[in-house]
Amino acid sequence: MKKLFFLSALLLMSVVTFAQQALWGGAPVVSPEIHDDNTVTFRLKAPKAIKVQVTGDFLPATPIQTERGIWEGPGIADLKEGKDGVWEYTTPEPLAPELYMYSFIVDGLKIMDPSNVYMIRDVATVTNVFIIGGGRADLYKVNDVPHGTVRRMWYDCPTLDMERRITVYTPAGYETSGKRYPVFYLLHGAGGDEEAWIALGRTSQVLDNLIAQGKAEPMIVVMTNGNAWQEAAAGESSKGFVAPNMRSPEAAKAPEGGFELSFPDVVKFVEKNFRVKKGKKYRAIAGLSMGSFHSGNISRYYPDMFGYVGLFSGAPSANPKSTCPVYTDFEGKLAKQFANPPALYYIACGKTDFVYEGVTNYRKLLDEKGYKYEYYESDGGHIWRNWRIYLTEFAPKLFK
Amino acid sequence: MKKLFFLSALLLMSVVTFAQQALWGGAPVVSPEIHDDNTVTFRLKAPKAIKVQVTGDFLPATPIQTERGIWEGPGIADLKEGKDGVWEYTTPEPLAPELYMYSFIVDGLKIMDPSNVYMIRDVATVTNVFIIGGGRADLYKVNDVPHGTVRRMWYDCPTLDMERRITVYTPAGYETSGKRYPVFYLLHGAGGDEEAWIALGRTSQVLDNLIAQGKAEPMIVVMTNGNAWQEAAAGESSKGFVAPNMRSPEAAKAPEGGFELSFPDVVKFVEKNFRVKKGKKYRAIAGLSMGSFHSGNISRYYPDMFGYVGLFSGAPSANPKSTCPVYTDFEGKLAKQFANPPALYYIACGKTDFVYEGVTNYRKLLDEKGYKYEYYESDGGHIWRNWRIYLTEFAPKLFK
Repeated sequence: MKKLFFLSALLLMSVVTFAQQALWGGAPVVSPEIHDDNTVTFRLKAPKAIKVQVTGDFLPATPIQTERGIWEGPGIADLKEGKDGVWEYTTPEPLAPELYMYSFIVDGLKIMDPSNVYMIRDVATVTNVFIIGGGRADLYKVNDVPHGTVRRMWYDCPTLDMERRITVYTPAGYETSGKRYPVFYLLHGAGGDEEAWIALGRTSQVLDNLIAQGKAEPMIVVMTNGNAWQEAAAGESSKGFVAPNMRSPEAAKAPEGGFELSFPDVVKFVEKNFRVKKGKKYRAIAGLSMGSFHSGNISRYYPDMFGYVGLFSGAPSANPKSTCPVYTDFEGKLAKQFANPPALYYIACGKTDFVYEGVTNYRKLLDEKGYKYEYYESDGGHIWRNWRIYLTEFAPKLFK
Repeated sequence: MKKLFFLSALLLMSVVTFAQQALWGGAPVVSPEIHDDNTVTFRLKAPKAIKVQVTGDFLPATPIQTERGIWEGPGIADLKEGKDGVWEYTTPEPLAPELYMYSFIVDGLKIMDPSNVYMIRDVATVTNVFIIGGGRADLYKVNDVPHGTVRRMWYDCPTLDMERRITVYTPAGYETSGKRYPVFYLLHGAGGDEEAWIALGRTSQVLDNLIAQGKAEPMIVVMTNGNAWQEAAAGESSKGFVAPNMRSPEAAKAPEGGFELSFPDVVKFVEKNFRVKKGKKYRAIAGLSMGSFHSGNISRYYPDMFGYVGLFSGAPSANPKSTCPVYTDFEGKLAKQFANPPALYYIACGKTDFVYEGVTNYRKLLDEKGYKYEYYESDGGHIWRNWRIYLTEFAPKLFK
């Protein structure tokens, strides 16, 4: 009888490895290869291709003039064909520490790198990513430190008459500490969703690392879906695998100010389901781009809710045409917010961001009124590199 | 002053939509398009391509003869070039309800569909996916039912001297019910990791739906990483963005039976961190392929731990050469397990699976010894379609 079962664990594993669907494909080359000096080689085996290029934010940006200023388009570099149809490009200089995004372009067709399984979706585009460690970029890496928990869960949102999906980070030790924690609400930009900050923002890695280094207080981070017409990220909702589209009929049906007006539903859910410290001084809100606009609006409309406010690459502005209570009496509501001001009102923007002028105008208004805020200016434009930087700058200032 | 801020929410959003990095790309065609009759059209804009094909499990399988039987390779179909370099293929027949995987092949180069952001990584391969609803496949969809929470978290594993990552599903209502729940430990196959069952197995959707329909008991599902040499899925560990590779030097260093021996660490963590019902009759374990082997081993080596055991597309077997206590005295330990047998010992296999003979031999042994088990046989081979089916069959039998 025993002979029948003489199939060792190792043999079973090797057979299974061969057979699993996962191994349909397989990478014939290594790409990207990060060398010890932080130069990087990209490779693609494409014997029949005429032209292969790589595009990504590690290359010098291509400035694109728009009506509202300069937008930084991605750079492009050519790969050269070598042996066996393997195309290759090595960066001429070492890359600075950063999380980079890239894709290949093969005869005009943009594709993912088939040798790199690390892809991140941002709205309706998927790109490959890699990290060059060192400096601030070490905060974006998974390091050997205590790790928090990331939950994907659903909350009841009666204001929008939906169950909605939410991403919640709790710090290492939350499950067993018995302690209560402050809460940081972190909002995405237009077209993004409740996955954006966790994926490209590296929120869980940044918080794990800052907390382990003693630079940030242990806190809960709540990442909402700011599209009032959406119950969840595409593919995660009962609408099925619909491609993300800000111009869809559903998006047009969203009530004005709907997300802002529904925000107390989020806070109520969080404070019921997690061990939190309650009250203004234990609540922070920040967002990027549209999320900055939302953070400004929510903290202005509910002036007693947030003790810390962060506006990354964007600013709220008056809309005299609107009758939505979130937007009416802009300066009056701002005055009320700053009558009992947040402990920190933080604004960050890139020097070449197309929203730079709007942010500057908002700062002028705050200056004129004598409302205190902290300002951080970085190089570059309306890009994730900056939003990660702002997160690493803002989070250590909270709840201290 | 007000004029300076005359930048309405809508305008800001449309500008931002244009400018965000996410919109570097953009899909010029719709693909896949699922028609009302469940035929599906695939499209790719590739004006310079000579040949474009689609490969996936919705096409008739290509049988591949291996030393150990027939493996079902993916089918391939040609797209035809139409206007503006848009290539197209429509399935000749409606597709049956299922979650399908596919990729394009452009002049021999396998690529993702740039119009479809729904991709799932399985080991070292990423494929696009789509779902044809109806029948059992409706269990794989996000439906308008109460949703559970999915946590990615870390547990202390002193046996392997690591912190290790784990995926935990808790049923809808867990956070506020105050109740205790039974626990189902669900194990992946060779090369997989703690993401496999959630991604391709659709565990959270299947459980949400079965529980909502009253077909499965509300339960916690724990998805481990079964590679004893790995702290986490690639990209999620402190080893960085290393490509998954079962033949790496790290993999070779894994202690024999290490995962099985470390399993009490998992159970200890779960029972400390979650409101669970304790004891054999409230614990289930099942796995696919290598996970089946692990489930058989763990439940045999710890005979008082699991009241429900599921072996999907695989079976444990004696290894007379091993001195690891998990593998020694195979039949003696099995006798001990069945002296106080689990409430359910469940075996499932596909008719054309290359492990069919091994599973049949194991069943013969159980029959000879008079050990009771339940057997489920499906069409097809060693594929995710079957593992999803087995999950939907097995979960409703638990804890009743």
